[in-house]
Amino acid sequence: MSTLTDLLIGMEKHKSIFENEIRNLSIPTCSDFGSSENPQPISFTPSGEKLESKDSDKVKQAFQNSFEQAVLKSSGKNPSPLSNKRVAVLFSGGPAAGGHNVVYGLKKILGAGNTLLGVKAGPKGLIQGDLFEITDQNIAPVINTGGFDFLGSDRTKIKSDEQFQSVKKTCIDNNLDAIVVVGGDDSNTNAAILAEFLSKDVKSDGSGVQVIGVPKTIDGDLQIGDILPISFGFDTATKIYAEMVGNILQDTPSSRKYWHFIKVMGRSASHVALEVALQTKPAIALISEEVAEKSIPLSAIVDQIAKAVVNRSKKGINHGVVLIPEGIIEFIPEMNALIAELNDKVAMFHSELSAKNNEEKRNFMYAKLTPEHAQLMASLPDYIEDMLLADRDSHGNLQVSLIPTERLLIDMVKVRVSELDQSAPFATLNHFFGYEGRCGAPTLFDAAYCYNLGLTAGSLILSGKTGYMASIADLNGGGEPLGIPLPGLLNIERRQGKDEFVIEKALADTKSPAMEFFTSRREAWASEDLFSSPGPRQLWGPVSRQIPITVALNRKYSSLDFNIGK
Amino acid sequence: MSTLTDLLIGMEKHKSIFENEIRNLSIPTCSDFGSSENPQPISFTPSGEKLESKDSDKVKQAFQNSFEQAVLKSSGKNPSPLSNKRVAVLFSGGPAAGGHNVVYGLKKILGAGNTLLGVKAGPKGLIQGDLFEITDQNIAPVINTGGFDFLGSDRTKIKSDEQFQSVKKTCIDNNLDAIVVVGGDDSNTNAAILAEFLSKDVKSDGSGVQVIGVPKTIDGDLQIGDILPISFGFDTATKIYAEMVGNILQDTPSSRKYWHFIKVMGRSASHVALEVALQTKPAIALISEEVAEKSIPLSAIVDQIAKAVVNRSKKGINHGVVLIPEGIIEFIPEMNALIAELNDKVAMFHSELSAKNNEEKRNFMYAKLTPEHAQLMASLPDYIEDMLLADRDSHGNLQVSLIPTERLLIDMVKVRVSELDQSAPFATLNHFFGYEGRCGAPTLFDAAYCYNLGLTAGSLILSGKTGYMASIADLNGGGEPLGIPLPGLLNIERRQGKDEFVIEKALADTKSPAMEFFTSRREAWASEDLFSSPGPRQLWGPVSRQIPITVALNRKYSSLDFNIGK
Repeated sequence: MSTLTDLLIGMEKHKSIFENEIRNLSIPTCSDFGSSENPQPISFTPSGEKLESKDSDKVKQAFQNSFEQAVLKSSGKNPSPLSNKRVAVLFSGGPAAGGHNVVYGLKKILGAGNTLLGVKAGPKGLIQGDLFEITDQNIAPVINTGGFDFLGSDRTKIKSDEQFQSVKKTCIDNNLDAIVVVGGDDSNTNAAILAEFLSKDVKSDGSGVQVIGVPKTIDGDLQIGDILPISFGFDTATKIYAEMVGNILQDTPSSRKYWHFIKVMGRSASHVALEVALQTKPAIALISEEVAEKSIPLSAIVDQIAKAVVNRSKKGINHGVVLIPEGIIEFIPEMNALIAELNDKVAMFHSELSAKNNEEKRNFMYAKLTPEHAQLMASLPDYIEDMLLADRDSHGNLQVSLIPTERLLIDMVKVRVSELDQSAPFATLNHFFGYEGRCGAPTLFDAAYCYNLGLTAGSLILSGKTGYMASIADLNGGGEPLGIPLPGLLNIERRQGKDEFVIEKALADTKSPAMEFFTSRREAWASEDLFSSPGPRQLWGPVSRQIPITVALNRKYSSLDFNIGK
Repeated sequence: MSTLTDLLIGMEKHKSIFENEIRNLSIPTCSDFGSSENPQPISFTPSGEKLESKDSDKVKQAFQNSFEQAVLKSSGKNPSPLSNKRVAVLFSGGPAAGGHNVVYGLKKILGAGNTLLGVKAGPKGLIQGDLFEITDQNIAPVINTGGFDFLGSDRTKIKSDEQFQSVKKTCIDNNLDAIVVVGGDDSNTNAAILAEFLSKDVKSDGSGVQVIGVPKTIDGDLQIGDILPISFGFDTATKIYAEMVGNILQDTPSSRKYWHFIKVMGRSASHVALEVALQTKPAIALISEEVAEKSIPLSAIVDQIAKAVVNRSKKGINHGVVLIPEGIIEFIPEMNALIAELNDKVAMFHSELSAKNNEEKRNFMYAKLTPEHAQLMASLPDYIEDMLLADRDSHGNLQVSLIPTERLLIDMVKVRVSELDQSAPFATLNHFFGYEGRCGAPTLFDAAYCYNLGLTAGSLILSGKTGYMASIADLNGGGEPLGIPLPGLLNIERRQGKDEFVIEKALADTKSPAMEFFTSRREAWASEDLFSSPGPRQLWGPVSRQIPITVALNRKYSSLDFNIGK
């Protein structure tokens, strides 16, 4: 007995059998860096590709010191890397699998000749100057593990002059030479602005602080064609969701009685829903971008699902799975227009509304809305109306993630099914998969991708670069380290009455190979069970090396294998 | 491109890369059966252990032809197994991982000299005579896969005389010699009764039909000390839930702002919650059986959680995970009493209630309940009161699984935290993990356990036995096939005014080694983050062979390795 209880107590605090073993996995490494255990910094040369955005001219004016458009590629081992550099790294925004390996890659490539500092709890820690030195000892336990807990993270956006000055003070106080920002589109925009702001006159000799971004987001909406096939964390999150959806699909012909409506993360883009659909082949998968592009009304979506229910029922199949991207409601044209009007009117009549109960709020608002919007709102279930009238977030926007779209669809489909065929059984269950996917242990792909992103980010620093985002291209070849000039990605958007620089979110392109393949198969998937279960992600054995299906299709790879380091 | 799209289309219908590979995994097999590929039937001899229940005398009277108390163990290779037998197998109740391997084990052990038939869609299919022949060809695709879809399942209980006669007719029509029932406590009780009913005079020569049970349930409440360490499906389900809970735990110190309240399956027993707690070490895990045994009131549970929130907050830890067994509400003494009175009163005043809206229902019921129950009910949030007054199931019972216990606890803890420490942040999210765990691909343990259960069930049949449940003991030794006499497990319970035979559900024993270990560690887990993530279940590599922690502790094994066939 005591042997076993000792073993179990020894497993506390990140020392499960699994966690102990994954720390020892060898990590595939691009050949440019030499060996995985002793990687060497590379230097860079223009790849010939130049980035151009509609606002390049204005960006150039604003980024006088750091404006660049040329994508950089490896020119082999750096014969004279910089040394004695002090580099800080921070996580920004929601966690994604692999972040720890970015830090580990940085640590390895900076080596003993430089110092790596961790910024605690995200951008806020950079503002407050909360840093600690990362050593070989303290990083060892987090190699290949999920989560962002080694540093922590937060969602502070460095925006005000005061905040920028605080960051500068942190740089001076800690004698920093470079900052690595691990984050999504907003955080990388912030990195670009920071790179310009810190480009000179930070230190007493007039020199600046370099800033390098690393592309993170489980939503997959930070991707740029061949030069950035995908952000890190997407592969792990979608494989976690796909296993759960696959398990539920496997349940449906076993218990033979339920339609499961499953919402998955993805407010702005449907990359997650599309990837999970390709992995599992459910009866229905909705894609927000297609709904917006084709102006598909809510009634048509409901009709599509109801018809699939009725058609399957005629074949004796009274079960199925409907996959719903979290943000779809804002992509449905009439709902989007209703929400926009409501955002205005809720702000306008805030004090009147606050004194009323839900029913009074609804009746009050019917009279204030344009007639067609009043009618649309009245046609929705009460619990949806109440959500639509609920308090806004700090930007005055509806909190879309709180709307139970899956319940709305279930209720509306139920009505439509009974209109189409009274005898068709339609029992339902609903699920939302979100937080489960952010902090799982990384897939081998994300583990390797992130380690190499860290090696690339560190190499960019030791080559003296600033304002670049690290990337690894050619994922089914050997993997090609790139530096993507952040200013080249910037556009200007009007937000809350002000022009702001932004990296536009990459939405799912309805004409992409992945979408075309999906649309070519979905009718077959709707008409009978053709699903498959991708299973739990494997770190060992014959199914451990797979890139996302959407990436393989869109990049025209011939297989699902990732071949970094091969 | 076309290579990849061809590959993807080829993966439809249970042919993912993962599914194709797991079908080829070799399955560990108890040495009694010889090789895994060519297993041979064993014969049985009394092990010396006899089962005794409080109602053994009455059971003996009712089971005149099939009463047995002696547990059977292997006596080696059966020198003269029966042949030319026609055996039917069915799944009963909710799916559990490994069911397909039970069928595969049966098919292998019955071999070419006997015929295996599958009963479609559970006990209902047995009543209706819906059977098909299982061949080497049609079973091959489901080896090592999750779910019950090969046969389907349902929850029909064979109860009425008419139903028993229909089953007899199915036996005669299909010339059956034996039936294997794969199910939980209720289904195995049904198997015992069926074994007695079919013990003779079914066929023209006066002979009967053998009935053998196989222990399935993800809840783990069908387990009998050393002779049945666990039911199949429990290991896979708890490892799926533990991965999700581990992912969320890993999220908490990354985003540093949420308490997650996670409900897991387990209405009658808390084995699932206990196992998941031991796998992941959350701040709090509630165990229903302990709440009932110690008569812990709801207020004390709320207080326990609130104090952990406040204590952690003082250390700067504003996050944590609370694990809640699905059925806990019925184990809280005053809630149990309230629900019992409500079940009576809702039935009594059914017509009066049906005409009222929710608020009217509540006010009406306050006047009908005993004063302390009226007060208790009024103290609960409205949405809980409404659920408590909602329509009952077909047995007149409250549908406990519909009660959002996690929301109830969140709301009550919020109030208590603000009483204890206004400054303690308490942001929450809630989850329910249920269906995701029933149909995942089996762990190596469940795959092996189920295959050997099938080999054992088939061997019992080819030895002429009836009224036994197959089991594998000594899981961390080589694995020992057993036959457990079902009548020896029966007790008598009064249900809806009638005496009924039942196999009592095995609840979590608060004095078991697993519970003792849990209680010895939980204060440490509450006071700071000591969690670990068991990771996704692995079918290959160094972490693929682990039995449940509760089983290893309770059976006093010295490690977590399962060693079937070693």
